[in-house]
This record gives sequence, structure tokens and C-alpha cells, in this order.
Amino acid sequence: MRRDPIVGRQVLIAEDRATRPNDFLGQKTASDRNDSPADCPFCAGHEDETPAELLEVRDHDGNWQVRVVPNKYPAVSLVADEGGPFGTHEVFIESPRHVGDITELTDDEFAGVLRVYRRRLRHWSIDERISHCSIFKNVGSAAGASLEHVHSQLIALPTIPPVLKAELSGAEAHYRQYGCCRFCQLIDEELAERKRLVAATDQFVAFCAYAGRQPFETWILPRTHASSFNRLSDAQALDLARLMRQIVGRLQTQFVPLAYNLMLHTAPYRHASADYYHWHLEVLPRSTQLAGFEWGTGVHINPLSPERAAAKLSLIGGK
Amino acid sequence: MRRDPIVGRQVLIAEDRATRPNDFLGQKTASDRNDSPADCPFCAGHEDETPAELLEVRDHDGNWQVRVVPNKYPAVSLVADEGGPFGTHEVFIESPRHVGDITELTDDEFAGVLRVYRRRLRHWSIDERISHCSIFKNVGSAAGASLEHVHSQLIALPTIPPVLKAELSGAEAHYRQYGCCRFCQLIDEELAERKRLVAATDQFVAFCAYAGRQPFETWILPRTHASSFNRLSDAQALDLARLMRQIVGRLQTQFVPLAYNLMLHTAPYRHASADYYHWHLEVLPRSTQLAGFEWGTGVHINPLSPERAAAKLSLIGGK
Repeated sequence: MRRDPIVGRQVLIAEDRATRPNDFLGQKTASDRNDSPADCPFCAGHEDETPAELLEVRDHDGNWQVRVVPNKYPAVSLVADEGGPFGTHEVFIESPRHVGDITELTDDEFAGVLRVYRRRLRHWSIDERISHCSIFKNVGSAAGASLEHVHSQLIALPTIPPVLKAELSGAEAHYRQYGCCRFCQLIDEELAERKRLVAATDQFVAFCAYAGRQPFETWILPRTHASSFNRLSDAQALDLARLMRQIVGRLQTQFVPLAYNLMLHTAPYRHASADYYHWHLEVLPRSTQLAGFEWGTGVHINPLSPERAAAKLSLIGGK
Repeated sequence: MRRDPIVGRQVLIAEDRATRPNDFLGQKTASDRNDSPADCPFCAGHEDETPAELLEVRDHDGNWQVRVVPNKYPAVSLVADEGGPFGTHEVFIESPRHVGDITELTDDEFAGVLRVYRRRLRHWSIDERISHCSIFKNVGSAAGASLEHVHSQLIALPTIPPVLKAELSGAEAHYRQYGCCRFCQLIDEELAERKRLVAATDQFVAFCAYAGRQPFETWILPRTHASSFNRLSDAQALDLARLMRQIVGRLQTQFVPLAYNLMLHTAPYRHASADYYHWHLEVLPRSTQLAGFEWGTGVHINPLSPERAAAKLSLIGGK
């Protein structure tokens, strides 16, 4: 882990990753990718092409449905003498079938994946070396995916990453001043205004982010206050799976092909943020490249207002 | 200009940009781009396809060499009643010829472009509504460019952008503690260590950034302390033009095609940072996509060490 000498920006130098299936020194093209089941290391029957599994969820017939394996090209490592930055990097293979996105799973299947997220988050919660787990999903090469087969990843780190630190700090300041969770308040505001609302289920609310960085940036929050995904109930998992599959389905009508990143934001371990932090998911479709202005200033340019985006995505009123 | 309700992240919602030549709702492909001189709005003979010029630099025969025009699809506007965020957005057309990068200009031609950067920075320095100008260059669609013809851009803003604020804050803290410019010290360190050094001319030093965010991130700094690009001498402009053309030439041997962003970091107007801030250029080749981990955590993963990158780029020792 290196820090920029002026601004302290954190960078993991992870040279092992350079030998990933998509060599970083070439443009990614469809033909470079392991797109057919015959040469896909994540498909059923190819289990020996990944490192040995950390966890497998099996169905009644004994066939695996979700597999968790160490990332073959990890950005971080638990083994200190390997030299690289500390942490662990896991891949969640979300189906034995060669499908590209969660819309091709059933609600039950994706709920099973979400329960695996919860299980791995609980697993790492008892390791005192780990402060936080980042779970994310890259779909499509424009979102940084190197393999098409539906999957997500977990990176566990010994420190709280800067984006989460900024959220904790903003949320704590609000809580100290107003005595309430800023995210809970935001849910109420979005439900009242409805201008950016995409969906509201029994358990969750989804809306286009007020200051979305790119077109169609969408946040999904549990309606009941909870700082950590660890405590997701099975009923919530099923409700969330259905909602996420619907939202991704709506996004697929806007982008062909759809590429997006999904980021789970959840409280760090052993951190006194239970009252003011609120776990959530951020869905970021990738249609525009970050350019010199964004890199140079940190300010994003979004060419589509979140209000217009929400009108196109809305799942409310029978659309 | 919107701010995220939790972390205060700044976003310009600029809907006019959605109608740029590359519609943001499609994947960018070579065939979408205005790649031939016949339909390029930046080529000589097509001057009526851009807004009227703000500045033209002409040669002895009266032909323009560099043209500055308002961006046809601006992210910001000086006209308050147009509703969008405040500021100005200019395009520098760097040659009348349909060439794609500065390596196809002569040193003198690109030095002329750098003098235009200086001239526009001076122009905006006397406008009290403007705090800072960001000058940047996007080359290649992977770097966010919508047109191939060699060009760069300026966005002037009423506030100091977050990336620059972080740099000013880090540099000021160092100056208060140690009484010297952190950037000057960094130049000495990189010249002494040589591990990341790419080039050292009379006037400039170039090295791969210690905490580079992506492979081959390269910084170029003037050896003599100066906080603002406004005071660049003509001799420095020529030296810098030659060096930048060489560095881009070396990068073209590593990436086919090469896509990169170039960002000029210079002190804000009317800001007491002359002693501790040091202007510089950041060159960021774009070979890897930001993925869910980077978006979700703010931590970058760089699969190539800056030391290895420097060895490949080095212009030292007759390479």
C-alpha cells in the first residue's frame, strides 16, 4: 500500500494482477474474453481452474449453486512474506451456469448469493486484522470486468477505506448536530419528493442519487435503519434480490450492452457507527469515461439529471 | 453544481452535453467518431462548425495555428440565466491539420500551444468570479475524448476544486512543518534515487508517480520552484514541449492505441500558495478501467510498479 506524498491518496501496487486473463497492456475486446462456457473457469465442470473453494453452497442434489474462491490474481494477500499489501481477495461465483448478469438468475438464486455476502462478511468480522470488507460487482468490460460469467468480489482490508471514512464522517457530523441518521432522513425526503424515486418495496427504497456521478447512478437502502449488511434477514435478502434484478433489468433497456459497477457500503467492524451509519448499495452504470477534468479536479460531470434518469428507470405505477 | 448529501462530493449536472457528437447512451466505437478531415469540425476550412473563436494564433502567412473556441457542449456557463453551473468551458484546437496527438506536431508548434495555455490562464486571472482554471487533454475514446483531432480544454470555475484543495492542504502542512516546498523536495528525491526517473532536462524533471493510480502515471515538474503556469517562460515552453512530445512518444510504444489524460495542476488565482505550491503536469495513460473496488473505496489498484514503468519509459542514457 503506497500513499501519495502530497495528498496521501492510497494505491495498492499489485503486480501479480498484470497476468490476469485480460492483459492490461491491450485494449479489451470481446474476442479476448473467456466468453464461452468451454473456456470459462467459473463454469460447472471447470472447478479445477480456480483455487480451491473457501465455501460452497449446494442444492438438494449436491450440485453447487454459489462458490467462493480466492482471487487467482489478488490485489492483497494475508501472507506477509509475499510482500504485497495485506488483506484478502475473494471471488463469488454466483451460478454454475454461464450467464452474464443477475437478471438471468431467479430471485431465489440471487437471494442465495446475497446470503453468501452476509456469510463472508460475518466470517471476516471475527478476524481482528480486518477492519472492513468491500463487496463489489463489475459487469461488462467497460466496468472493469475481466470475465463474463456472473460473479462478484470481496476485498478485506486492515484499514477503513477513504470513501467509507468520508461517509462515516459526514454521517456522524449530521447525527451529532441533528440527532438522526442522515440516510434515514434521505429516504423520507426521496419518498416525499418522489422526483428521483425508482422503487419502494416493503423493505427497501431505490432512487437515483441527487448528486449522481454518472447517468443513472442508483442507490438502494433498507427502510429500517441498520449500519451493517451482516444483519440482513432472509426475508430482506429475497426482497432485495427481486428489487435488484428489476433495477438491472430496467438499466438493460437503457444501455446495450449494459456495463455497471455495484458497490456494497457497510459499516466497518468494531466501529461505533451503529446509530448514524446506514448500509446501502450503489449501482453505477458505466457509459461515460472519466476524463481529464474529473481526474484533475475531483468534480464529476453528469450529462443526465437524476430526475430524468429516475423517470426512465421507475418501477412505480406499473411501468 | 450539486453536492452529495453525505460526503459533499461535487457534481456538475450538465444536460446540454448529452447531445455531444458521441451520444453518451451508446458504446463509443471508432465508426461513431468524426475521424476523417471531411467531417471534422476542428479542421482548417471547417471554422464555421465551431462557435466563433475567442483567440486565434496565426503564422506569418495569416493561417491560424491554434484556435480557442467556446465548447459547443459546455459543462458550465458564464450566463447565470441559462441555469447550469457557473464557469466557462473552452476548447483549444492545437493544429489546423487533422492529427491525433502532439507527437505529430513539431516542438515549436506544441510550444505555441503551451503559450496559449499561459495566455488563457492570464486572461482569466483578472476575472474575480473565477478562482481556478483546469486545463486538460483527453486523447483517445478510452480517455473520454469525443473527437480525434488534437485538442485540449479549459474549464474555469468559481471555486477551488477538491483535488487541488487536497494538494494545497498537503503542501501547506509540509511547508509549515519543514519550511520547504514538498514538490521541490520530491524532485531532489527522485533525481537522487533515479528509480522512477523518466527524464531530466535543463528546466524539467519527469518521473513515474510513487503512488501512481494506473500503470505509467507520469508527473512533469519545473525544476525551479513556481506555483503557477502563468509565469512559464518561452524557453521553458519549448523545453516542455520537446519533453512532453518525447514522453508521449515513449508511451505510444507501450500502448496501441495510446489513450491518456493530461492534467495541468496550477495554483488558484489570488491564493497565498506561492511558496508551497508547485505547478506540474500529470499524464495518466488509460489502460485499466476503474472498477467497483476503486469507486467503492477510493483506493486504486495499480498492476504495474512505477519503478518498472519508469524503466520502460526512461529517456535517460540514450534510450
